[in-house]
Amino acid sequence: MKTLDVCLTPALIPLYDVENYIVVVIDIFRATSSICYGIENGAEAIIPVSEVDECAAYREKGLNYLLAAERNGEVVDGFDFGNSPFSYTPEKVAGKTVVLTTTNGTHALHLSRSAKRIVIGSFLNLTALCNWLKTQNENILLVCAGWKNNFNLEDTLYAGAVVEQLKPSGFILDDPAIAANDLFQLGKNDIGQYLSKTSHGERLKKLGIERDIAFCLKIDITTAIPVLEGEKLVRLV
Amino acid sequence: MKTLDVCLTPALIPLYDVENYIVVVIDIFRATSSICYGIENGAEAIIPVSEVDECAAYREKGLNYLLAAERNGEVVDGFDFGNSPFSYTPEKVAGKTVVLTTTNGTHALHLSRSAKRIVIGSFLNLTALCNWLKTQNENILLVCAGWKNNFNLEDTLYAGAVVEQLKPSGFILDDPAIAANDLFQLGKNDIGQYLSKTSHGERLKKLGIERDIAFCLKIDITTAIPVLEGEKLVRLV
Repeated sequence: MKTLDVCLTPALIPLYDVENYIVVVIDIFRATSSICYGIENGAEAIIPVSEVDECAAYREKGLNYLLAAERNGEVVDGFDFGNSPFSYTPEKVAGKTVVLTTTNGTHALHLSRSAKRIVIGSFLNLTALCNWLKTQNENILLVCAGWKNNFNLEDTLYAGAVVEQLKPSGFILDDPAIAANDLFQLGKNDIGQYLSKTSHGERLKKLGIERDIAFCLKIDITTAIPVLEGEKLVRLV
Repeated sequence: MKTLDVCLTPALIPLYDVENYIVVVIDIFRATSSICYGIENGAEAIIPVSEVDECAAYREKGLNYLLAAERNGEVVDGFDFGNSPFSYTPEKVAGKTVVLTTTNGTHALHLSRSAKRIVIGSFLNLTALCNWLKTQNENILLVCAGWKNNFNLEDTLYAGAVVEQLKPSGFILDDPAIAANDLFQLGKNDIGQYLSKTSHGERLKKLGIERDIAFCLKIDITTAIPVLEGEKLVRLV
């Protein structure tokens, strides 16, 4: 029987034999939501990089690159944009390659590099992703990007939503998967309301991005599944 | 305002400035339950050590030491006992010093050494501990020993029970504390039943220690609060 495990923070990735899993990277506010939206909207590729400097280096490679850099929830000075999903509309990204560095999401992605396959999850592509995962016959590890290497509620709740769709397929769940699914049960009727009590929700509100938050909680508005091919996230076909 | 934070696994302890907190170490199945029971029952002290060898070294120091060593849920060959609470009765431990090494609990304790104070929590002393914590006017960090550095449900649920008693006192909760408290709401009416679905519950059942598990879930049968003084856990007076 296959296992469905949830890694609650990037700091815990070393506890898993990542090479035995398909990994789903989750950073709901806002990196993986924006990646799903950008790939859906025709971005040719999104290149996740760890450091702001690596991102800036693409400036010299030509006009086809859009440079996106976010630190602590804000766009870094001198970059085209950060990780607000509203920067990933068809008008802005179709046919372009976006080079993206964010606080938590790219970190989780890089630590998962030895996985059988790495795909990107968000509420936007929830059901499309789950339907694909069901066909794979592999162990699945849901990696929550969290906040500064620690647990956060929004990524865990999303992991619980994935568990909810996959558990009828008979996976063995680890304790974090059980907990994530139980938290999803508590929050599912109004995820925005549930998350509004968290520290991160408070912090993001202060940054004036309530509109982004509401958008990142929209379920099933996209069907593209971003997958890592080499160094690039592209649309799974 | 003071903070009440939950560290879900020992691997995440480095994310906290431990020196700013009173730390409560939690290893429900079974180390901290047995420590609470042993101190309640008149053990003079319990010395937590990391390695089996360190524990064995006390053999030469005299007859007043009882040596307890557990690895992967079982008593290590050649030791007096492991961490079953039924080994910590008055007849066995009164007036004695127990030297204890366990898989997860002593690990969490050692990583928390720089805390303002380290106390030991279990369902056995839940309310006594919470009543004392309420009088302290300090930030509180609940450290779950977990299972092999990862999250487990039983320690998290207990952390949620502590949050339940302390939150009316107006602490700021971090995301893990909110999640732990929500999980406690789900499980509180029958904690044993709730935990029976977990991987750890299954594993412990295979070891034939259902009786221990049931005992470790008894609430408020003791009032002693074990506190670390130097290298020894003693009764807080």
